[in-house]
Amino acid sequence: MVFSRYNSSHSTAPSAPELPPESYHQPQQQQYQSYYGQPSSIYGQSGGFPAGTQPDVVRAFQMVDRDRSGFIDEHELQQALSSGYQRFNLRTIRLLMFLFKNPYDSLRIGPAEFASLWSCLGHWRAIFERFDRDRSGKIDSMELRDALYSLGYAVPPSVFQVLISKYDNGTGKAGLDFDSFVECGMIVKGLTDKFKEKDKEYRGSATLSYDSFLCMVIPFLVSYD
Amino acid sequence: MVFSRYNSSHSTAPSAPELPPESYHQPQQQQYQSYYGQPSSIYGQSGGFPAGTQPDVVRAFQMVDRDRSGFIDEHELQQALSSGYQRFNLRTIRLLMFLFKNPYDSLRIGPAEFASLWSCLGHWRAIFERFDRDRSGKIDSMELRDALYSLGYAVPPSVFQVLISKYDNGTGKAGLDFDSFVECGMIVKGLTDKFKEKDKEYRGSATLSYDSFLCMVIPFLVSYD
Ligand SMILES: [Ca+2]
Ligand SMILES: [Ca+2]
Repeated sequence: MVFSRYNSSHSTAPSAPELPPESYHQPQQQQYQSYYGQPSSIYGQSGGFPAGTQPDVVRAFQMVDRDRSGFIDEHELQQALSSGYQRFNLRTIRLLMFLFKNPYDSLRIGPAEFASLWSCLGHWRAIFERFDRDRSGKIDSMELRDALYSLGYAVPPSVFQVLISKYDNGTGKAGLDFDSFVECGMIVKGLTDKFKEKDKEYRGSATLSYDSFLCMVIPFLVSYD
Repeated sequence: MVFSRYNSSHSTAPSAPELPPESYHQPQQQQYQSYYGQPSSIYGQSGGFPAGTQPDVVRAFQMVDRDRSGFIDEHELQQALSSGYQRFNLRTIRLLMFLFKNPYDSLRIGPAEFASLWSCLGHWRAIFERFDRDRSGKIDSMELRDALYSLGYAVPPSVFQVLISKYDNGTGKAGLDFDSFVECGMIVKGLTDKFKEKDKEYRGSATLSYDSFLCMVIPFLVSYD
């Protein structure tokens, strides 16, 4: 029997919100021929957004993209998301920028990435609400364990303890607000996905070179203030 | 020939500042019989400090330990270190607390840990000054690469790029102040040491279970604000 701490792709468990296709370090196909062209061409037709993007998503983006360059930076992203979600910590914003970035410009994101990020946050929001069973507005330790487990991430108890202690501010009971929940979920998902790439047969272990180990981990580490 | 991206223990390169013996997750021998005793007994004799501790280190600790409990929390540590070094970012403080913590109380540190931490920072300060070749007060990308390399950490270029981008605030040239340098150095050292534990023959690769992978990595990730 195959030992597996995380679900294989054939799992029937609900899956974690997906990152954009070809996520992380795979270069995406260039979507902005007009990147170096006229700024106005960015907002022609669908405005650079995928067909079917909700008008409020387009509005949230355009409201902060004041120079109409078709790209927004981290502070603008923070502001744009606050219209639909909340004011995220800049640290969470940076993690989101890293995970959803345009491969040609790691400091800004465009309409396609923004739409994809917005929809991903919607999925996390639904998970948050489903697992906040006592409606406290926070995800406590048990709720987090169940949420991650339902997504297919069986985080070992010792790790879980450390993870929780990162967010509970030493009180042992505060729980995670949506901001921290997104950050925490994205980190667990991101690290697990990276590990699974190296563990193609889902044996629960992988051989890593020192270089690939650092490559997998460093991007999730602290970012500048 | 053995492939090695990091030095083996037989390396002749200068070594990175050492963490306390039995560092990380190994429980240390209990040093404070008087933890639950009279507060005054903490400062009897050597005051809980190792023999030979410099008076200014003892003073820095006692100045912030106002209730004379013999332990200081993260905010007190931040204040205590500022007398000898600088006001570190709370994030760096938390990483230091994690690395030097008393195994019986992860939220406070005592005199022995404090003395050990203070001396470790002294080593990092010397490295900082040695590699800040242009005396800019910042460690730039080249200086950082040389500093880490001299310590035996041959961080691959792709990782190095990500590491630098975490601290340069998008400018690509600002460089790391001492605070960021300590954080960055401690992370590279911490992750490398963890990896080496799993790569006993110094082959440059290791087989990790998913659980041990997460255990190695999560403690270095983001901490609460
Ligand atoms: Ca709750
Ligand atoms: Ca310099």
